[in-house]
Amino acid sequence: MNAQEFLTLFQKKEVSQSFDYYDDVVAILKEVRENKDEALKTYSQQFDQQTLTSLKVPVEKLKASYDTLEPQVKASLETIKARIEAYETAIKYQDKSLGEFRYVYRPLEKVGVYVPGGTALYPSSVLMTVVPALVAGVSEIHVVTPTFSDNNITFATLYLCGVENVYTVGGAQAIAALAYGTETVPKVDKIVGPGNAYVALAKRLVFGQVGIDMIAGPSEILLYIDETADLDAVVTDVFAQAEHDANARTFVLTESEHLLQQLEEKIQDQLAKQVRADIISLSLKNNHYGIVDKRDNLIAVLNQIAPEHVSIQHQDSAAIIAAINYAGAVFEGHYSPEAIGDYAAGPSHVLPTNRTARFSHGLNVNDFLTSHAVISLTETTYQTIVGAAETIAAKEGLDAHYQSLAIRKGKPND
Amino acid sequence: MNAQEFLTLFQKKEVSQSFDYYDDVVAILKEVRENKDEALKTYSQQFDQQTLTSLKVPVEKLKASYDTLEPQVKASLETIKARIEAYETAIKYQDKSLGEFRYVYRPLEKVGVYVPGGTALYPSSVLMTVVPALVAGVSEIHVVTPTFSDNNITFATLYLCGVENVYTVGGAQAIAALAYGTETVPKVDKIVGPGNAYVALAKRLVFGQVGIDMIAGPSEILLYIDETADLDAVVTDVFAQAEHDANARTFVLTESEHLLQQLEEKIQDQLAKQVRADIISLSLKNNHYGIVDKRDNLIAVLNQIAPEHVSIQHQDSAAIIAAINYAGAVFEGHYSPEAIGDYAAGPSHVLPTNRTARFSHGLNVNDFLTSHAVISLTETTYQTIVGAAETIAAKEGLDAHYQSLAIRKGKPND
Repeated sequence: MNAQEFLTLFQKKEVSQSFDYYDDVVAILKEVRENKDEALKTYSQQFDQQTLTSLKVPVEKLKASYDTLEPQVKASLETIKARIEAYETAIKYQDKSLGEFRYVYRPLEKVGVYVPGGTALYPSSVLMTVVPALVAGVSEIHVVTPTFSDNNITFATLYLCGVENVYTVGGAQAIAALAYGTETVPKVDKIVGPGNAYVALAKRLVFGQVGIDMIAGPSEILLYIDETADLDAVVTDVFAQAEHDANARTFVLTESEHLLQQLEEKIQDQLAKQVRADIISLSLKNNHYGIVDKRDNLIAVLNQIAPEHVSIQHQDSAAIIAAINYAGAVFEGHYSPEAIGDYAAGPSHVLPTNRTARFSHGLNVNDFLTSHAVISLTETTYQTIVGAAETIAAKEGLDAHYQSLAIRKGKPND
Repeated sequence: MNAQEFLTLFQKKEVSQSFDYYDDVVAILKEVRENKDEALKTYSQQFDQQTLTSLKVPVEKLKASYDTLEPQVKASLETIKARIEAYETAIKYQDKSLGEFRYVYRPLEKVGVYVPGGTALYPSSVLMTVVPALVAGVSEIHVVTPTFSDNNITFATLYLCGVENVYTVGGAQAIAALAYGTETVPKVDKIVGPGNAYVALAKRLVFGQVGIDMIAGPSEILLYIDETADLDAVVTDVFAQAEHDANARTFVLTESEHLLQQLEEKIQDQLAKQVRADIISLSLKNNHYGIVDKRDNLIAVLNQIAPEHVSIQHQDSAAIIAAINYAGAVFEGHYSPEAIGDYAAGPSHVLPTNRTARFSHGLNVNDFLTSHAVISLTETTYQTIVGAAETIAAKEGLDAHYQSLAIRKGKPND
C-alpha cells in the first residue's frame, strides 16, 4: 500500500468519540458525589463482586506484598526507578527570571493515580506514573486500583515508591471519588493514569473539575526501517506491539517494497511460535499496515497518524527524526527498541495515542507542576504602556479598569 | 472575618460541576458531527436569529473593519501586540539535549480560537489568545465568533493579527465544528478561548478528541494589602474586578482590621459614582470578602482559593510572593495593577479561575506547542539496563516484549 492509499483507508477507519456510555457514567459520578463511600462500596459489590469493609489498604499489607518480592525483581524495580528519576529530574522545569517578569513552577498538592487491576498487574505502569509525581515534589499521592489479592506486585511497587494512600476501588466510581472526595478518598487536584473505556469517559467528564492527564486509547507503534535494520529484531518489535491487545496497531514504513516483503515473510514464519500468538494474530489481522513510498510521503503519513511510539531503524535516522512533528515518543536505532522504553529507558511509557500526540505529550514530571507569571513592572515601564491600555479599556467600555489604570499615571506610590 | 471563618464559608459556597445541560450539548455535538454546515446554519437561525448563506467571513470584510479603526486604537493594539510577542517569545520552550535523550517542541498545526460575540467585543481577548499562537508558530488559526455586525473591533483585531480564517458561528455548535470539522470549518488539533456555559460544557465534552485549554468560570481577584498601599488605587482595583459581571469575586486580605475598615468606607463612598455601578453593587454584595488574620493563615487561604488574579500591594511583597503556590497570575506593587495585565503587561489575561490554578496555568505560547522525547540509547547503556527490563517484562508475562529486549543483548547491529 502506498501513502495515499493508506491515508484514505486511515480516514475511513478513524473512530470519532462515542457518547454511548454517557448516561451510565454520569449516573455513577452523581451517585458517588452524593453518597460517597457508601456508593463506592455498592459499586464494588456490583461491578467487582467485592464486599469491602474498608476502602483503604493498610500500609502493612503494602509492605507484606513488597516483602514477598524475589530479590531480582526488587533490584530491577529499583534500577528502573532510578532511571526514571534521573530522566525526570533532567527535564523538570525551573523558574525563569525575565526582568520585570518571573515565571514560576510549583508542585501540585494532591494527585490521584489510577492503576488498572484485573489479572494483568503491570509494575512498570506504577513506576511510570508515580515516579514523575515524586520527582515533581507532589505532597500527597492517592492511588486507586481494583486490586483485591493479598500479595501482589502493584502493592509491592507502590510500597517501593513510598506511596501509603492506596484504595481498592476502580472504574468510573474511582475517578468520581478522586474528583469530588468521599469520607475515605480525598478530592485531588489532578488525576492521571490509564484505564478502561468507563475510566476514560469519567476522566473526560470531570475535566475542569480536576486536572486530567490524557484520555488513553489502544497502543500503537510506527516502525520506519531500511536495509540496515536487523529484520529479526524488527519482527520482535512488531510482535511486542501486537501482543498488547487485539486493537493494538502497527504501521511499518519503508522506502523498499522488497524489504517489506522480507519482513512480512518473517512475521508469518514466527507467528505461531509466539506465547501470545492468539492476541498477536488478531491485532496483526486488523491493525497492521505496511506502507511503501517516497520519504516525504511517508513522513507526511507519520505526522498525520502522530503515533504513540515511533521506532526509526534506518541509516538516515537523524534526518527522519528532524522531520517528525507529532509522536508520543521517538526511539532511534537498534539499541532503542520500544520495549526498552516500556521499562527502563527513562521517559514515561504513558503516552498519547489515537492521534492525540498532535496536541498532547507523554506524561512527565512537568505534568505534576503548575505555574504562573509574577508581574512586577517598574514605574517607567508602566508609564510607557499605560496609554495603550487606557485606550483599549475605554474602547471596551470598562470604566473601572480605565480608572484603575489612570489613577497610577504619573503619581508616585508613597 | 478571619481566615478560618472564611474557609468554612468558602467550602459551603464552592460549586461542584453541574450536569444540567449535558443532554442539550451532546445533542448539538451529534447534530453538527452528522449534518455539518447545514446544522451550523440551522443553529445560527435558532440561537442567533441569523440567516447565514456563508459561514466564513471574507478577508475584505476583516480589512474593512480594520480600516475604520481610529489611529489611536490601531497604535494601541500594535503596542499591546508587541508587548505580548516579547513576553511569549521569552518564555517559549526550547528543545533540550540530554545526552541519550532529546526533548523537542513543535508548534501545533491547526488551532481553533473561540472569541465571544454579543454586545461586548473585547479586542484585548483576541490579542491574548491569538498572539501566543502566532509566536508558537501555529500554521493555521481558525477563529469562531458569533459576531454579525459589519464593522467591528473583533474583525479589525483579527485582521491586525493576520488571521484570515474567521467563521460567524458561536455556542456549543462552534466547538463541535472545530472538534469534528464541517465542509467549511476544518477539524483542528486544539481549541482555546473563553465562552459561556454552553461553550464551556462543549469544550469539556470534546476534550481528548481535540486539545482544550481550560474551562473558564467567573473572574476573581485577591488583593493582599498593607498600610503602604495606595487605598484610593486599591478601590479602583476592587471596582475593576467587580464591573465584569455579578459573579465576579474579590477577596481582600490584610493583617490590619483598621485598614480593612478604611478600604470598605472608601468603597461605599465611591460606589455610586461608578459608570457600571449596577453590576459593581451586585458583585460586591455577593462576592466580596475582607479577611483579616495572621500572614500564615492568609497565605493558606490564598493557596486554597488559587485565585485567577493576585495583587500584592504590601511592603513584604517578596516574602508573600515566595509563599504563593497557586494563582493564575501574580501582580506585584502599585505599578502592576491587575488592569495593566488585562491589557498590556504581556502575559495572557486568559487565566484559570474557580480554583483550577491549583492544577492549570494561564494560556501561553507553550500551550500551542506539543512535545516528545527522542530516545537514542548507546549500546553500553542498553546492555546496562536490559537485564532489569527483561526481568519485569517476564514478570508481566509479555513474552514478545521480552524477546524484543533479549534479541539485542550482546549482539552488534550490523
